[in-house]
Amino acid sequence: MQRTVFFISDGTAITSETVGHSLITQFPDVDFRQVRIPFVGDTAKAEDVVRRINQSAAEDGAPPIVFNSIVDEEISAIVTSSDGVILDLFAAFLDKMEEALGVSRHASVGQAHGLANLERYEERMEATSYALSHDDGISTSYENSDLILVGVSRSGKTPTCLYMALHFGVKAANYPLTQNDLEKQVLPAFLRPFKHKVVGLTIDADRLSQIRETRRPDSRYASLKQCHWEVEAAESLLRMAGAPVFHTTHSSIEEIASRILAKLGVQREMF
Amino acid sequence: MQRTVFFISDGTAITSETVGHSLITQFPDVDFRQVRIPFVGDTAKAEDVVRRINQSAAEDGAPPIVFNSIVDEEISAIVTSSDGVILDLFAAFLDKMEEALGVSRHASVGQAHGLANLERYEERMEATSYALSHDDGISTSYENSDLILVGVSRSGKTPTCLYMALHFGVKAANYPLTQNDLEKQVLPAFLRPFKHKVVGLTIDADRLSQIRETRRPDSRYASLKQCHWEVEAAESLLRMAGAPVFHTTHSSIEEIASRILAKLGVQREMF
Repeated sequence: MQRTVFFISDGTAITSETVGHSLITQFPDVDFRQVRIPFVGDTAKAEDVVRRINQSAAEDGAPPIVFNSIVDEEISAIVTSSDGVILDLFAAFLDKMEEALGVSRHASVGQAHGLANLERYEERMEATSYALSHDDGISTSYENSDLILVGVSRSGKTPTCLYMALHFGVKAANYPLTQNDLEKQVLPAFLRPFKHKVVGLTIDADRLSQIRETRRPDSRYASLKQCHWEVEAAESLLRMAGAPVFHTTHSSIEEIASRILAKLGVQREMF
Repeated sequence: MQRTVFFISDGTAITSETVGHSLITQFPDVDFRQVRIPFVGDTAKAEDVVRRINQSAAEDGAPPIVFNSIVDEEISAIVTSSDGVILDLFAAFLDKMEEALGVSRHASVGQAHGLANLERYEERMEATSYALSHDDGISTSYENSDLILVGVSRSGKTPTCLYMALHFGVKAANYPLTQNDLEKQVLPAFLRPFKHKVVGLTIDADRLSQIRETRRPDSRYASLKQCHWEVEAAESLLRMAGAPVFHTTHSSIEEIASRILAKLGVQREMF
């Protein structure tokens, strides 16, 4: 069964799409065609959206599901007049929030993913720059880091650091354990003063070998034997160093980042 | 007025926090203390959440707002029994979706930010690796790029590329215009064959100078005069090259990325 789903917003549509994705995963038998329409900021654009929704309804022979997070009530009402099934994120919750807080809302468009808090935004950009300059052991001066991800090559360190930096403003460095570290079974000297910030990442050897194979086919680096040895040596080293270790085999970077921040008790706001 | 807001989930809590942020920005006069609790996957954890919510209610002298996206109905019911004002993302929309789709939901925890679609996930990781190896003109072989961000140094190219790669799996390269490019007023030869993929970023000279000043204080690089000259030269070059140009001064990377993808008609799913 194919159905169309729209994510509509007067801002980026990130909120609308995030909620929509969470909900449509609960209907795995439906094949959803997804259409994102951000920045619907005036009535002309809203009328264009209505035409697209109605056209979809006619083509599918069934009304599309429309996740609507337009703040402006007049513009939102135009979208609501379409043939879609409207799920309105603001209408659903704002009344209850006003009641609970005892204050009225101030309609402000697209604050959620804009530059409302410039200082906080600059922290995220600064953290991203930090993650890049402290990626893969490029710089090993870790004084200003919030945490240092340590693991074997291709265990998921870089994207996890970038994600934590971009979204949480966390200064995450990462260091790939070398053959020498693994043989000696100790963290390198420059990492030891920052042992309390070290977080281990590990991965199943089979999966690691598969990932490395796409990089360097038929190499010793990608061989199952080498991967097994590295993963075992890394896990033993990290255990002895007393570092918390997270498994990346069956987890996305979003999940790993959430687990790390929860474990370390980091309560920084996500963007 | 201070109030506590909880973001609760049996997954990463990203959905819950994203929606929550969108909604609390509508109440700028309230000082929200934000608490994220992900991975509430069993009844013991849910009971612990209830204790924390009730403690907050007692301390604040007012019930906290609780954004709940726990899929499991039994675990969710425990959280609902707390003293918080519960805004339940699934309860609010799933009935309406079931009705519209004519099928029942399959409760599946944490699919939205997990590894449900491994192929799609690998595309994102591959795109992130691409963005890193094609950052800042490091590699100028653009055959496989989806787009190439071009602008002066510190105009926002790198974080925007990383964001598009991590979330949309878009292979975004970036190239910083050099003094030589700006003087000659043409794209460098290696970029010309990929002119149709070039997207310009620009920024107000004042803001650029401010950003550069934090990097290299009192330098010619950061001076307002140099920034003015570079921005004008870059805008004129990009105009002549026929590239679409986006302004980053008052926009977050989320907004810029959304605008670029909308303009280019890229309809890839966000993660």
